[in-house]
Amino acid sequence: MRNFKVDGDRLWASLMEMAKIGATEKGGVCRLALTDVDKAARDLFVQWCEEAGCTVSIDKMGNIFARRAGKDDSLPPVMTGSHIDSQPTGGKYDGIYGVLAGLEVIRTLNDLDYETDAPIEVSAWTNEEGSRFAPAMVASGVFGGVFTLEEGLACTDVDGKTIGEELERIGYAGEMECGGREVGAFFEAHIEQGPILEAEEKTIGIVQGVQGISWFDVTVTGMESHAGTTPMERRRDAMVGAAMLVAAIDQLALDNAPDARSTIGVMRVSPNSRNVIPGSVYFSVDLRHPDPDTLAAMTAEAQRQAEALAAERGLEITFEEIWHSPPIKFAADCVGAVQSAAESLGYASQPITSGAGHDAVYVSRVAPTGMIFIPCEDGISHNEIEAATQSDIAAGCDVLLNAMVALATRDEGEARDST
Amino acid sequence: MRNFKVDGDRLWASLMEMAKIGATEKGGVCRLALTDVDKAARDLFVQWCEEAGCTVSIDKMGNIFARRAGKDDSLPPVMTGSHIDSQPTGGKYDGIYGVLAGLEVIRTLNDLDYETDAPIEVSAWTNEEGSRFAPAMVASGVFGGVFTLEEGLACTDVDGKTIGEELERIGYAGEMECGGREVGAFFEAHIEQGPILEAEEKTIGIVQGVQGISWFDVTVTGMESHAGTTPMERRRDAMVGAAMLVAAIDQLALDNAPDARSTIGVMRVSPNSRNVIPGSVYFSVDLRHPDPDTLAAMTAEAQRQAEALAAERGLEITFEEIWHSPPIKFAADCVGAVQSAAESLGYASQPITSGAGHDAVYVSRVAPTGMIFIPCEDGISHNEIEAATQSDIAAGCDVLLNAMVALATRDEGEARDST
Repeated sequence: MRNFKVDGDRLWASLMEMAKIGATEKGGVCRLALTDVDKAARDLFVQWCEEAGCTVSIDKMGNIFARRAGKDDSLPPVMTGSHIDSQPTGGKYDGIYGVLAGLEVIRTLNDLDYETDAPIEVSAWTNEEGSRFAPAMVASGVFGGVFTLEEGLACTDVDGKTIGEELERIGYAGEMECGGREVGAFFEAHIEQGPILEAEEKTIGIVQGVQGISWFDVTVTGMESHAGTTPMERRRDAMVGAAMLVAAIDQLALDNAPDARSTIGVMRVSPNSRNVIPGSVYFSVDLRHPDPDTLAAMTAEAQRQAEALAAERGLEITFEEIWHSPPIKFAADCVGAVQSAAESLGYASQPITSGAGHDAVYVSRVAPTGMIFIPCEDGISHNEIEAATQSDIAAGCDVLLNAMVALATRDEGEARDST
Repeated sequence: MRNFKVDGDRLWASLMEMAKIGATEKGGVCRLALTDVDKAARDLFVQWCEEAGCTVSIDKMGNIFARRAGKDDSLPPVMTGSHIDSQPTGGKYDGIYGVLAGLEVIRTLNDLDYETDAPIEVSAWTNEEGSRFAPAMVASGVFGGVFTLEEGLACTDVDGKTIGEELERIGYAGEMECGGREVGAFFEAHIEQGPILEAEEKTIGIVQGVQGISWFDVTVTGMESHAGTTPMERRRDAMVGAAMLVAAIDQLALDNAPDARSTIGVMRVSPNSRNVIPGSVYFSVDLRHPDPDTLAAMTAEAQRQAEALAAERGLEITFEEIWHSPPIKFAADCVGAVQSAAESLGYASQPITSGAGHDAVYVSRVAPTGMIFIPCEDGISHNEIEAATQSDIAAGCDVLLNAMVALATRDEGEARDST
C-alpha cells in the first residue's frame, strides 16, 4: 500500500459549495429527488466530473456514472458512490459525502497522475432517501435487480408525478441500461448516522454488513368500554395490553445485547378518547439483528409473548411480518481492502454493522461491496444539524482512495501479496 | 309506604315511541343536542307532559320543566329528570329513560288521582352528553351554579354555532331563569352503564354518590433517533418510557381494588414513524375513586412513579392535572328514600357508586339529590346496542315513584316516622 492521501481542503470546499444548493436556514439542505434543486446539484457534480476528465453517462433510472479510464478499459470498473438527494430537513453530509469523496478520489489520482488498471467510476444514485418517491434506494435497487425498470420509473410522489416524468423534465432520463453490466467492486463512504464511532473515539468504521430488518404490524383488540363504570377486573384493555407488549419487546432487544435493536415507532389508539377504555391499539415493530438466526429467534419470542399476553388478558393480538430484509455480509475482499487501508494509514478503526439501509445494500446483489463509515456528531442524521469534522471526512476519503486503488491495480494486489 | 306501581307497558311504549326519533339502523339513536331531531323529541315530550296536565316551562338554557301541582304549591318541588340528547351512536335508554320515567311517575299519580303536598317536576336537561357542545352536562351545570349562563350559551359546536343560537333556532330559548330557585329533592333514574348490577343479579342500584375523577395530561420526552443505528443502551425512547408508565398506572388501580379505576384512553406519538425512535409521547390518564384521600394518594403515587421512571431512563416526564371532579356523596334523605322504596317493593338492590358523570352531579350542588340505577346488558352504553329489560325499566320507575312520593308527601313522611 502506498498510503495515498486526498486533498482534504478541496473535498471540504466541494462539500460546502454543494451544500449551498438547497441550503436551509438551520444549516442543512432540502434537496428532494428530481426537484429543480436536485437537478442543480446533479449539474454541478457532472460539471466537476467533466472538469476532472471523466466520461459521464446517465442510465434510464437517472443514475449518474463518472468514469476515469484505466489502463485496461475492458476490466470491470471499481466503483464508489452514494446519493445527491436529501431528506426534507436533511444535513450536508448524508449521501453527498460518498459522491464527492468519489470525485475527490479521481481528482487525487489525477494530481498523482496515477493510472489504475481497471477504470474507476463514481456513481450518484437517484432517490435514495425515499422522501419524495417511495420506496427508498429505488434506483440502486433497479441496478441491483431488486426492482424492474418499469417499477422504478412508475414510482409517484404525493402529486402523482412519476420518477420517469420527472427524469424527463429535468433532463436526466438517460439512454444507458440500468444495471446488467459487471462491476469489479463497489464501495460507499458514508457518515455512520449513529453514535458508536464517536463514543469509541474511532475515525473509521469498517462496515462488515447490514443488519437484518423485520417489520411487523401488531394489532391488539380488546373491548371498548366506559372508563368510569367498568371495574378493573372486567376490562379487556387494548392499551394496557399494548403497553405491556411494548415493554416486553424492548426487553427482548436488551436480552440480545449488544447487536439487537427493537423499536416501536408508530402507535394508533382507537377510539382515542380520554374516558373510553381503548378497544383497539395498532403499533409497528422494527426488529434488527446482523445474525439471521438470532433475528428469527427474536421474532419467534416476540410472537410467543404476544400470544401469552393475549391469553392472559382476554385480548386478541395479531403479530404480522410485513417486510423482511435479510442480514447482509459484505464481500471479504472489499471489507479487507477497507481494513488494510485504515490500518496502513494509521486511522483508529473498528468493525461495525450498518443499522440503516444504503445504496450499497442493493448494489451488493450484483457486485462485491464494502462500506466505510466516519463518525457524525452525537450520532445525529436526517437532521439539519447533522455534522462531521473535516479531518474525519478527509480520513474516510483517504481510506476509500487506497481501498479502490488496491482493487483496481494489479500491482497493488501483487505488492500486497508479496508483503 | 304504599308500594305504588307504575304502568310498565306504558313506560316501555313511550320509550319505544321516543326511540323512533333519531333512530339508527343498528337499533340505537343519534339525537345530538339542539338538532332538529332533538327538537322533535323535545316537542313530543312537551306534548305528552301537557296531555298529562303538566305546566311546562323552559329556562334560558333550554332546560324543560314539566310541573304537576301539589296541595301546597309554595313548597319546593320534588324533581326528577335526565336528558333527551344522545351520543352520535347512542342507545335507546341513556338519559331518555330518566326523563320518561319522570313522566310515567306523573301519569301514574294521575291514574291514582294522588295529590302530593309538594309539586312534582320532571326536568329534561340540555346537552348532557357533550357530544355536540363541550363541556358535557353544561345546562344542569348552569342550574347548579357551576357555569354562568353566559358560559353555557356561548358553547360552540364544530361549525361554530352556539348553544344560544341553536336554542333560538329550535324555539327552546326560554324566559325562565336557569337555577336560583329552591328544589326540595332531585332524583335521577338511569341505566348503570356498567356491568355490576347485571353480574350481581340486582335490579336496583342505590347510588351512594359519584366517584372523584382526576384527569391528567402526561408528556414523555426523550430523544428522537434512528431505529437502526442507535444502540439500545444509548436510547432515550419516549415510547418505551410511556409504555412502562401506562403499565404502572394500570397496576396502581389494581393495587387499590375494588373501587379504583385508571384508564389511558388517548395516546399520540411523535414523530410516529416506523423507523424512528419516538422523541415524544403524549397520553391521557383518568384516575377515579369514591374516596378523596385514596384518589389523592393514587395521584401522588402515579406522579412519584413518573419521576422515578424519568430519572431511570433519562427522560423528561410532565404529569399535569387538568381537571378534577371531587367525589360526591348524595344526600342521606334521598339515598334513604331510594333504599326504602326498593326494599319495600321487594326488589333486589345494592349500594353502588356512579362511575360516570350525570346531571344529578351538578344538581346536587343546589338540591338534596339521589340516583337510581338499573342494569343494562353487558354493561354496554354509549353504543347503539345498549339494552335494558322492560321489567328492570319498570322496577326502576316504581322505586322512583315511591321515593318521590315519600319526599313530596307529609303524610308519607309521618307514616314512615311512625313505623
